[in-house]
Amino acid sequence: MGETGSVATGQDVSRERAILKDGKHPPFFSEDFRAEFETLLAWRRDVRHFSSEPLPDGAFERLIETTALAPSVGNAQPWRFVRISSPNLRDRLADHVDAASRSAAQAYESDRAAAYRALKLHGLREAPDVLAVYSDEKPTAGHGLGIATMPEMLRYSTVMAIHTLWLAARAQGIGVGWVSIVDPQTVSDLLDMPDDWSLIAILCIGYPICPTDQPELATRGWQQRSTPEIIDR
Amino acid sequence: MGETGSVATGQDVSRERAILKDGKHPPFFSEDFRAEFETLLAWRRDVRHFSSEPLPDGAFERLIETTALAPSVGNAQPWRFVRISSPNLRDRLADHVDAASRSAAQAYESDRAAAYRALKLHGLREAPDVLAVYSDEKPTAGHGLGIATMPEMLRYSTVMAIHTLWLAARAQGIGVGWVSIVDPQTVSDLLDMPDDWSLIAILCIGYPICPTDQPELATRGWQQRSTPEIIDR
Repeated sequence: MGETGSVATGQDVSRERAILKDGKHPPFFSEDFRAEFETLLAWRRDVRHFSSEPLPDGAFERLIETTALAPSVGNAQPWRFVRISSPNLRDRLADHVDAASRSAAQAYESDRAAAYRALKLHGLREAPDVLAVYSDEKPTAGHGLGIATMPEMLRYSTVMAIHTLWLAARAQGIGVGWVSIVDPQTVSDLLDMPDDWSLIAILCIGYPICPTDQPELATRGWQQRSTPEIIDR
Repeated sequence: MGETGSVATGQDVSRERAILKDGKHPPFFSEDFRAEFETLLAWRRDVRHFSSEPLPDGAFERLIETTALAPSVGNAQPWRFVRISSPNLRDRLADHVDAASRSAAQAYESDRAAAYRALKLHGLREAPDVLAVYSDEKPTAGHGLGIATMPEMLRYSTVMAIHTLWLAARAQGIGVGWVSIVDPQTVSDLLDMPDDWSLIAILCIGYPICPTDQPELATRGWQQRSTPEIIDR
């Protein structure tokens, strides 16, 4: 922990410390840390352009370990990580995504169709690592807590593990791209996955060629950002 | 940006800076920042015990603004935020969750049933703020990109907006608790929400009474954490 972990002034820290009952001091996150965290969020990005440079030894494994800190319903930890090492499997996956992208392109007309064709939608052929993330629909962990009425909470937990990995990767300069233009059943057959595991994401992982804090879809005129509204009830 | 935002040494920074093409320098995140970010992940927690102290003026609105930095499929930004200000609506929501919790309890037997009854599952009656988060299933933004085969990507995007809010809140000492023991249709009727918006979460937001870096479900013996494995293909 650096300077930003220990310096604290004014009302915030008295609140943090006054509340605590067990003698341990919870961490205080300074304004500098908060600003830098917001920079991390802004530079996260969905990366489609990767250098072929491999990750340092152990970096992939450490990213997976970080996901243990993600929230999960009932602490069920339903995330399942499948590293695609086989060049043959990777090729077949990339071919499948290209076919699915061509199929999706048919929904667009005129200018929008041209814009779609100009987008690079995945880095499956270049990224040094490809990770499939599954969610176990029937985990023994968690004992069913919190999923009686919303079983999709398991899948949502796995999504938060992915987002955790994504941010932890960017903090090391590593980019992640989420590929969703796939037929989940085709991918599960390809990877020989159990029937009660749901495909959540295919992730490309590696160093981005052109890091930026602007969404590529905004830069290319596909879709700009807007400010979220608050509805009152 | 503090010291950790500008100091950079060795291989990492040369990689970051060498890659960039447009003259702008991407941020370098130091080891200190990464360690503090991991502390933030560890202290995030699902909070069920809240002080009644209100958030500072504008804090709720700023948390919602931060979600604009979350990833979304096709940049569709499908997240919709509903602040529950009416005491009557809050009471009816809490009553509904209590009823759903009693119903879910019937799935457990003997010791596990006793453990379930001992858990505090929500802070809906105490938390200073309650937020319902919806996902628009038919947003105009994004133009359908990335959802032809996996329309659930819209809901997953909204989950990442929630996780973004959750971490940004904790960085300010503010706790968030995700309540999932609800019937989504009942809640949508109560809040008079459009049919094509899906309920993703009910969030309690406020200052935690006992901040901790240990999951309450682990402390109470419901479910321990385990280390994620990597499956190779």
